[in-house]
Parts: sequence; structure tokens; C-alpha cells
Amino acid sequence: MSKHLERDLEHVEQEILAMSSMVEDMIQRACRALVEREPSLAVDVIDSDTQVDEREVHIEDDCLKIFALHQPVASDLRRTATVMKINNDLERIADLAVNIAERGRVVASHPQFPIPETFSAMATEAISMVREALDSFVKLDAGKAREVLSKDDHVDDMNRAVIGELMDLMKEQPSMIDAALHCFSASRHVERIADHATNIAEDVIYLVEGEIARHKYDESFA
Amino acid sequence: MSKHLERDLEHVEQEILAMSSMVEDMIQRACRALVEREPSLAVDVIDSDTQVDEREVHIEDDCLKIFALHQPVASDLRRTATVMKINNDLERIADLAVNIAERGRVVASHPQFPIPETFSAMATEAISMVREALDSFVKLDAGKAREVLSKDDHVDDMNRAVIGELMDLMKEQPSMIDAALHCFSASRHVERIADHATNIAEDVIYLVEGEIARHKYDESFA
Repeated sequence: MSKHLERDLEHVEQEILAMSSMVEDMIQRACRALVEREPSLAVDVIDSDTQVDEREVHIEDDCLKIFALHQPVASDLRRTATVMKINNDLERIADLAVNIAERGRVVASHPQFPIPETFSAMATEAISMVREALDSFVKLDAGKAREVLSKDDHVDDMNRAVIGELMDLMKEQPSMIDAALHCFSASRHVERIADHATNIAEDVIYLVEGEIARHKYDESFA
Repeated sequence: MSKHLERDLEHVEQEILAMSSMVEDMIQRACRALVEREPSLAVDVIDSDTQVDEREVHIEDDCLKIFALHQPVASDLRRTATVMKINNDLERIADLAVNIAERGRVVASHPQFPIPETFSAMATEAISMVREALDSFVKLDAGKAREVLSKDDHVDDMNRAVIGELMDLMKEQPSMIDAALHCFSASRHVERIADHATNIAEDVIYLVEGEIARHKYDESFA
């Protein structure tokens, strides 16, 4: 590999890492906005989305420039393509964080509504999956990527627990249905964030081992 | 552009079109499975997903081969990258169709549950958005792509109408909450299919005009 290609690849990977920290922070704030009923955190998240969108476009352009200038082959080609895919996943995760933040703003206006306790734990797990998926990419560590995959079932279980609680609440107190539906959406969004982390981890396994881990793990119900 | 590159690009575009018809068919069957309470249609959809997954992997490999063999530049580079992105969107649409089909199976077991009438119209609109987005790609027609964007608000409105009906029903008849939540999820999935069609249309506008239409249209609440 030429020095220039190596330098440009490292640069774009640094950009992805910076974007990833920003996105992790957005998920965290969005979930806190909901759990702590703190609308100002929600506003922060919504404001950050424009920056993430700009970064996504910028990173994609950088990847296309790598294709055009360096014409990478074999593993460098797949590495660049993987950056493009992670970029896409991160941007969608940011959109989900915005959506959670919006749900948080509405839930904040229902002070009587009891937020299911499992929600916070599920959010923490989803955020750690995103972080570890990115870490597995940086270290090209398929073992670490598999650990991410193994956590997805746990998030699905927690999501089911949250939804079960919400259903019971709605049946007992129909006046809570509005707030409960917002919380239901937020919970599904967290589960989808975990799915995106899973996508990233599967791409890392493919990059490292050439084995297609994708599509072996299907989305579960919520 | 070399003849070989042109031939390979046309080939991969044909593959995307074939995948797209398959995915449109999946959405249609999934929504019919729900509206007509016909679980056998749901099973068809779930079975087709494996084929879509295989096609996605195959198309991505073909795109990477184009990068490696032909080292396309400028508009050919972006055309190949666009195929990769559309490929990704179609695969996710297929996952959403599977999810709708699964909801359909559950709703079928609640014969008393009234499915909101708007659901079918929304599904029809979302399917037409997918078809027209692909059509705008084939014809490199940014005007047509913009028509797709303009339909997204209509789908969002219909989704809100469906959810409003479901909320009223849940409040009046708590025994319907289980079925209503499945229908709520299905409705959101249809709305997300429309969002993916919007993504595709935005990519076509970027491809044709170099203008970034992405991120101008934000996901709305449901």
C-alpha cells in the first residue's frame, strides 16, 4: 500500500471515530432527556444532528476520493467500503437519537407517567455496543465484534420487558396511553441502535475474516 | 468510459432492479397479510428475505469488483457508490417487510380488531415511492426523484392518522391494546419504508445534480 493511501485511510478512520463519539454522546443525552425528564438535553441532541449530517457527507466524499485517487484493491478496498457503511450506520443512529430526544420532550410533559426501570439499562447496553463495535473496527478484532453480536439478544430481551411493562400500564391506566406510546417508540429506537451496532460488528467480521456474519442474526420483535 | 465498465455497471443496475421488484412484492404481500389477515402471505414474505439477503451480498461484491477492476472516476464512481447505497436501503426495506408480515400474523389472530382503513392507502403510497425512486435512478431523472420526496409528507400524515385511530381504540377498548400495538409497529414500519424511498431519491438527486438533498427532509414523529 502506498504511504498516501495509508495516510488517507487513517485520516478517514479518525474522522469516523470522532463522529462515533459524537453519536454516542447524542444517544446518552437523548436517553437521559427521557429518563430524567430534562427537555434541555433533548434540544442539545436535536442541535447536534446537523453536525453529524455534515460529517457523514464529508466522510463519504473522502471515501470516494480514496477510491478515485488511490484505486485501492483487496483489503484496502474493503476497508474503505467498510468505513462508508459504518458512516451510514452512525448517521442513522444519530437520527434515532434525535427521535428518542423528541419522545423525551413529550414524556417530560407527563410527570405522572412511570418510565420503565429497564429503559436506562437497555440504553447503557446499546451505547456500549456502539462503542465496542467501533473499537472492534479500529483494532480489526473479530473476537470483539462477536462479543457485540452476543449482546444484541440481551437488548432485545430488555426491550420486550419495557414493552411488557408499558402494555400493563396502558391496560390499567388508559390515561397513560399517550405517554406510553412515546416511550414504546423510544424503546424500539434504542433496540434499533443496538441493531445498527450489530450491523457494524458484522461488517468488521467480514472485513477481518471474509466471513459473512450479516443476516445470520435477524431483528427480533418488539 | 470503457465498454467493460459500462457493461458491468449496467449489469449491476439490472441486478438492483430485479432486487427492487422482489422487495416491492414483499411489502405488498406483507401489508396484505395484515389487512386481509392472511398468515400464508406472511410466510411467503419471511421466506423471501433470505434471497434478498443473498442478493444484497452479491450486489455489494459486484460493486467492489467494479471499484477494483475498473477504478471508475467522477460520475461512474458516484454511480457505483449509489448502487451500493440503494442496495443497502432495499435490504433494510425487505427487513421492514418481514417485520410487517410478522405483525400481520399476530393481527390475524385478533379477528375482532379493526384495522385502520388508512393503513392500506399508506402502504400503496409507500410502495409507489419505492418504485418511483428506483425509476428515477434508472432514468437519472432528478425531477422524478423530487416527486418522491414530495410524497413523504403525505405518508407521514397517513401514519399519524392511523396512530390517532389506534390510540382512540386503545383508550376505548383496553382489550385491543395488544393487537393495536402490533398494528402501530406495522404502521411505523411502512413509514420507515417511505423514508428509505426518500433516501434513495435523495441519492439520485445528488448523483444527477451534485446537490446534496440529503438531510433536508427530517424524519417526522409517529
